[in-house]
Amino acid sequence: MELYNPHTFIGCDTDFETSTCVLFGAPFDGTVSYRPGSRFAPMRIRPDSYGLETYSPYQNKDLETCQIHDAGDLDLPFGDVKKAHTMIESYTKHLLKHGKIPFMIGGEHSVSLPTIRACAEEYKDLCVIHLDAHTDLRDHYMGVELSHASVIKHAWSILGDQRIFQFGIRSGLKEEFDWADEGHTQLCKFDTRTLDDAIKAIGNRPVYVTIDLDVLDPSIMSGTGTPEPGGLTFKELHDAILKLNKLRIVGADVVELAPDYDSSGVSTAVASKVIRELMLVVVE
Amino acid sequence: MELYNPHTFIGCDTDFETSTCVLFGAPFDGTVSYRPGSRFAPMRIRPDSYGLETYSPYQNKDLETCQIHDAGDLDLPFGDVKKAHTMIESYTKHLLKHGKIPFMIGGEHSVSLPTIRACAEEYKDLCVIHLDAHTDLRDHYMGVELSHASVIKHAWSILGDQRIFQFGIRSGLKEEFDWADEGHTQLCKFDTRTLDDAIKAIGNRPVYVTIDLDVLDPSIMSGTGTPEPGGLTFKELHDAILKLNKLRIVGADVVELAPDYDSSGVSTAVASKVIRELMLVVVE
Amino acid sequence: MELYNPHTFIGCDTDFETSTCVLFGAPFDGTVSYRPGSRFAPMRIRPDSYGLETYSPYQNKDLETCQIHDAGDLDLPFGDVKKAHTMIESYTKHLLKHGKIPFMIGGEHSVSLPTIRACAEEYKDLCVIHLDAHTDLRDHYMGVELSHASVIKHAWSILGDQRIFQFGIRSGLKEEFDWADEGHTQLCKFDTRTLDDAIKAIGNRPVYVTIDLDVLDPSIMSGTGTPEPGGLTFKELHDAILKLNKLRIVGADVVELAPDYDSSGVSTAVASKVIRELMLVVVE
Amino acid sequence: MELYNPHTFIGCDTDFETSTCVLFGAPFDGTVSYRPGSRFAPMRIRPDSYGLETYSPYQNKDLETCQIHDAGDLDLPFGDVKKAHTMIESYTKHLLKHGKIPFMIGGEHSVSLPTIRACAEEYKDLCVIHLDAHTDLRDHYMGVELSHASVIKHAWSILGDQRIFQFGIRSGLKEEFDWADEGHTQLCKFDTRTLDDAIKAIGNRPVYVTIDLDVLDPSIMSGTGTPEPGGLTFKELHDAILKLNKLRIVGADVVELAPDYDSSGVSTAVASKVIRELMLVVVE
Amino acid sequence: MELYNPHTFIGCDTDFETSTCVLFGAPFDGTVSYRPGSRFAPMRIRPDSYGLETYSPYQNKDLETCQIHDAGDLDLPFGDVKKAHTMIESYTKHLLKHGKIPFMIGGEHSVSLPTIRACAEEYKDLCVIHLDAHTDLRDHYMGVELSHASVIKHAWSILGDQRIFQFGIRSGLKEEFDWADEGHTQLCKFDTRTLDDAIKAIGNRPVYVTIDLDVLDPSIMSGTGTPEPGGLTFKELHDAILKLNKLRIVGADVVELAPDYDSSGVSTAVASKVIRELMLVVVE
Amino acid sequence: MELYNPHTFIGCDTDFETSTCVLFGAPFDGTVSYRPGSRFAPMRIRPDSYGLETYSPYQNKDLETCQIHDAGDLDLPFGDVKKAHTMIESYTKHLLKHGKIPFMIGGEHSVSLPTIRACAEEYKDLCVIHLDAHTDLRDHYMGVELSHASVIKHAWSILGDQRIFQFGIRSGLKEEFDWADEGHTQLCKFDTRTLDDAIKAIGNRPVYVTIDLDVLDPSIMSGTGTPEPGGLTFKELHDAILKLNKLRIVGADVVELAPDYDSSGVSTAVASKVIRELMLVVVE
Repeated sequence: MELYNPHTFIGCDTDFETSTCVLFGAPFDGTVSYRPGSRFAPMRIRPDSYGLETYSPYQNKDLETCQIHDAGDLDLPFGDVKKAHTMIESYTKHLLKHGKIPFMIGGEHSVSLPTIRACAEEYKDLCVIHLDAHTDLRDHYMGVELSHASVIKHAWSILGDQRIFQFGIRSGLKEEFDWADEGHTQLCKFDTRTLDDAIKAIGNRPVYVTIDLDVLDPSIMSGTGTPEPGGLTFKELHDAILKLNKLRIVGADVVELAPDYDSSGVSTAVASKVIRELMLVVVE
Repeated sequence: MELYNPHTFIGCDTDFETSTCVLFGAPFDGTVSYRPGSRFAPMRIRPDSYGLETYSPYQNKDLETCQIHDAGDLDLPFGDVKKAHTMIESYTKHLLKHGKIPFMIGGEHSVSLPTIRACAEEYKDLCVIHLDAHTDLRDHYMGVELSHASVIKHAWSILGDQRIFQFGIRSGLKEEFDWADEGHTQLCKFDTRTLDDAIKAIGNRPVYVTIDLDVLDPSIMSGTGTPEPGGLTFKELHDAILKLNKLRIVGADVVELAPDYDSSGVSTAVASKVIRELMLVVVE
Repeated sequence: MELYNPHTFIGCDTDFETSTCVLFGAPFDGTVSYRPGSRFAPMRIRPDSYGLETYSPYQNKDLETCQIHDAGDLDLPFGDVKKAHTMIESYTKHLLKHGKIPFMIGGEHSVSLPTIRACAEEYKDLCVIHLDAHTDLRDHYMGVELSHASVIKHAWSILGDQRIFQFGIRSGLKEEFDWADEGHTQLCKFDTRTLDDAIKAIGNRPVYVTIDLDVLDPSIMSGTGTPEPGGLTFKELHDAILKLNKLRIVGADVVELAPDYDSSGVSTAVASKVIRELMLVVVE
Repeated sequence: MELYNPHTFIGCDTDFETSTCVLFGAPFDGTVSYRPGSRFAPMRIRPDSYGLETYSPYQNKDLETCQIHDAGDLDLPFGDVKKAHTMIESYTKHLLKHGKIPFMIGGEHSVSLPTIRACAEEYKDLCVIHLDAHTDLRDHYMGVELSHASVIKHAWSILGDQRIFQFGIRSGLKEEFDWADEGHTQLCKFDTRTLDDAIKAIGNRPVYVTIDLDVLDPSIMSGTGTPEPGGLTFKELHDAILKLNKLRIVGADVVELAPDYDSSGVSTAVASKVIRELMLVVVE
Repeated sequence: MELYNPHTFIGCDTDFETSTCVLFGAPFDGTVSYRPGSRFAPMRIRPDSYGLETYSPYQNKDLETCQIHDAGDLDLPFGDVKKAHTMIESYTKHLLKHGKIPFMIGGEHSVSLPTIRACAEEYKDLCVIHLDAHTDLRDHYMGVELSHASVIKHAWSILGDQRIFQFGIRSGLKEEFDWADEGHTQLCKFDTRTLDDAIKAIGNRPVYVTIDLDVLDPSIMSGTGTPEPGGLTFKELHDAILKLNKLRIVGADVVELAPDYDSSGVSTAVASKVIRELMLVVVE
Repeated sequence: MELYNPHTFIGCDTDFETSTCVLFGAPFDGTVSYRPGSRFAPMRIRPDSYGLETYSPYQNKDLETCQIHDAGDLDLPFGDVKKAHTMIESYTKHLLKHGKIPFMIGGEHSVSLPTIRACAEEYKDLCVIHLDAHTDLRDHYMGVELSHASVIKHAWSILGDQRIFQFGIRSGLKEEFDWADEGHTQLCKFDTRTLDDAIKAIGNRPVYVTIDLDVLDPSIMSGTGTPEPGGLTFKELHDAILKLNKLRIVGADVVELAPDYDSSGVSTAVASKVIRELMLVVVE
């Protein structure tokens, strides 16, 4: 007798062995300074993804014909960011060792650091595409070194200059913008107008894509910890994602959905569609 | 002593006899597969319409100088889609017989089928303008034949090829898009860029207009059952509505507002304004 | 590498074979006349049950030492109540045939009818304990025969007089109260003060327990379709549940949570605790 | 063809002429100091009253067999409390002149003053039963004389000492409690334990009943401007209402529902049930 | 021992004496006809402003290097619009006398009238830039002269023809649009396309800027009393604000945030960013 | 010119020097495993406390005649529980050194540990009164030692056996209840029926009172991280608080309000009233 218990993201029910890409959740928001709640993102996204279709009329591709395994969530401790990062890094290495593309659902943005570190170890020339409202270039935040506000600065300390390409940035300290301008990252303020150049500059190097959903305007993504008006429309973000199919993507994440701040469910629907479209680009 | 009990849509208090257009509600959502609640649309729209003015500065027209009767809602049974459809069809025929233009507020999208059927019987060459996020071209859905996901397919079985013009469509099965492409409907993906062509093609034939409010981007219409990011802005939908004044509209509906999913009341305000603007186009 | 994807109710991860009780969801709300949304109950209850412990300090028992299998949800069509009932009845018979106690999470109250019918076929003298705010004794409702407002009347047509014991009832037509008073059911208005007598009267006969969560006062259960003030406190309902451990329970359900009407999550937490406590009574 | 536009409170569709009691709304909240929104109470209560039955199993009476006319709402200006009060007083006198019992839905509590004034002019020995969390005995509030926080003080200036009986009071200035204690009103702190004495003391004198819904504990009435924990349960308020059937009630109101603060709809359901039960007591 | 009690708007902690601009709240919404709640705007905006940075990457300026004093809120009576206006006018004159630029957070739009009156007395050729969805040109509204719907008409009676420039207007009576067209104000329907012309026409004359936040599309500003679809995007409003830096601004306000209608907090974040950006333009 | 910026709890504006009791906030929720958000409690409680009066008719006492200083909030880092605890402990010692009674608003329950430690150092025989739904007696939780689920176990390691009195406990592991039963704490399951005995047993020893607001039933306290049905009514908690005036209280806290989970504001109103009543008992 067949019952129905949809505990994977829609269309991601390939088993681990035959999969080429593995989706997993990192429900951690322990360093968030303003509004927490991104820990709930993976558990809300999965059932709500069934409001989508598996087929994308934009890409004429279907999740059901891709080989994606949804592995569930890491069981992370909330009070200990170092331990949480260690677990994420370890799991990402496990996936890379088995030849899988890691695709992570956050959690706060700090969770991108261990996956980037694992990918950088595996892929020598790793570049990062970073879509976000915030610079995330602090050395530390409120005395905490590993924080969602410093994740890209830490990624830079692994990768070095000119390897990180930031888009949509519209909030940060003057010092952060100035530091980026010194040539450490390529920072495109407010929108994605330099994305084509970045794609050209990256060429065939391996790429990690990290999308902080607050890069979107809060009109369409109100369910996030630090909404910052003046962001991308969904169509603008979607256009950017489609362009990424020219790149060799070796890992990706979508972070900072805090679903409880949007009682309409729209933010979760947006996150689901961003994940579907980015996965279809990644697994090509 | 004068009291105030505004139980009609704003400016729609003409009596039935002298009216040229009759507004009525079809509060049925019994086949909705994902999030129900469009049954509440008519009862929320009426009082909230008083946040609008009757005058449209876009069209320089005023509902108060039109002859519209608000007849209230049909008293539909929730567990029986066939009976509900029969009641809607019967009431629409009643209106057509008295020379009124039917203007229905849904309810889920399946309620458009009986009004289209009644109009098609009355008007031989009936065309349909369909604004929606979803194809609605399934044969059946979860084993149910008369469903909100199959309403346009059923309409096609009445009207035949090249009579239905779909706009804003961005979700569906591959099979549905392919079927449309075979020439059964004119399906404009994602937006309304082919609307001018459609209006030309339709010419003077009678037209039924059905607006599923989820054609709008969920940034402005979060109160709907199946929000699908990447839709029209309000201005884009409004521009499309204004263009329809070149057509001979013989019936219309606005469906799929599920007001409880938007606690801010904005979605209901949007639905009210769409109704006002479309009514002013229809009753010209 | 161990990940975490808690897709069962907390502590209910025994496999089907070794289980004595099977939990399953019946996410159907197609006949609800007022506010729908109980279809979402099973999918919300499962993850939220992790806010509970598996151990009950009231009963000094633990779900982890019981043999309960969570089978997931039946995949029910929304527009067709008859088909939905057939599927539920068929699945319940499947469980009974394998010697399992069926424990269903609704959905609207109409879903209790097929499980009661299946249990009545299996157990000759079946009695029903019914906790509810509403009589549910209509012959039909708005022209629909199988409705959440008529479920107990239909159960009576299977079981006959003096087999159904109703508690907490505080809303209905005068005709319904009068009909019960004629001796068809034992109806305890407003509270559970006659529960001890009912338990004595039932004795060792097999019992089906159906809890419509709106029996609770809406102060503690706001997330339900038709909230009716003046109901039981949680402690009063809980006391009643503990008393049921004197009975031979052969099937049970907990219905009518509509989680979206309670944005605080409390109603879902209450439903989870009611389910835990009733399961611990049932599986004894 | 019969349609459905339920713009009266359930069961209150008797015409004005044959009615004995007239329900009307006073949607004014212009002096509220903390959280406004009681202006929306009448327009929310009417449609939501259809979640109730017309029959009360507590009183074995039915609204449908009573002669109650729902007149709609007064069209009150928000910025001008004096004008609003004049309109309410004038309408109440109109009802009294025609021999109707006025039954008002607020609005903030200040709207009770003009109805009490009109009733006091008509009925020489008028007493007032006042259920509230707050004393409402200020001379003025923030420099405003006619305020929701001073309504009972103003009523006292019309009626004099020992004519006002207050129940459930649990918030106010020390000066207000002291002033009441000087014998101006009979103030029962926290609950209704002296209600029987009050009913005896009033005897056959005409009574106006004013229920500020915040007398209820905010667990069951969260939708009110100034929620004050520690109030009556619904059952306690309901018991008090049933006792009032020994009195000769000549006017009544139910005020201070602010429905937008309770997104679950429970507060509106409670208000509707309080109105039904009190009307059934009043029209006896 | 240092504690943290952020009771000013972010970065506005200059003392009164050394400040050049004084921020203050006018939490009054007593004449609102539809949905009140703008009284809560100042108290919500201050703590939520800490989700912003003090630095604007758009203007490359920082609030921390400006000299702005946050004075707190005026303690206004709700039932008495005249008294409230007198207090606001008196406080604004106090600021002007001390050479400060007044920057007010509403409250409903009527609070702009006393500040405009005070500024017009101080500055002979005062012009007004008015961004709003609504004309606000009524003589009176529901019999109330001083109302949020008539504030610009009253401002005109102080300033005279061709001194008021309105933008984004998309709702009003036909009479209001016609009256503006007679040359009394320069009214730009729907958007800000004539802003450059207005800035040129104003030249070096002193300007008061009043932003009714409902000029924004409700997709990004759902938390307002009368949401009107079809408004400006955040970027469009922001572009308009940046252009105002060519003007000599002597006073400004941002009004009509009603934060409780947007449970996501986005509307308050938008209001905070509008205030930051406009203050940075004003204090230049 | 007098303005209004109420940034203290109502009636707590005594300066530090002359105060006998100091209120401060500890907005930390970094170890919460289920639903975070108690960090927002202090900043919501202060403005909402103005919906209360300073006068308590229960105790006939007034906050305005007490000497309480509201010091604001500690500026705690979210990702580092040890550092946060150190700051809280240090500040509490600072207060004790100056002879002030510390009264803390949480934050999650873990913040009670440093204040208890500081008080235990100051007062040799310190006892603890603990009101909570949960045992909080774990050694660690998800690998984290300092956690909101282990705070009382840690307090025990400071104080030893028979010094901690727990009330209202209705959730925990079997091991926790068993451990308490071994004589380590006096644990009163479900309610406060042994409170009189505890007060007698404590006698004149110094007492720290910690109230986890989830001891209340979620009907009245839905805004908390882990709502557990079956708790105290407000009146029951209030009665318990009044009894504490027989004790020598040297420190106190009220923790675990998570205001965003209760959009009605009732939970914050409850927290404010609990704080007022407990402060009036403490400062006696």
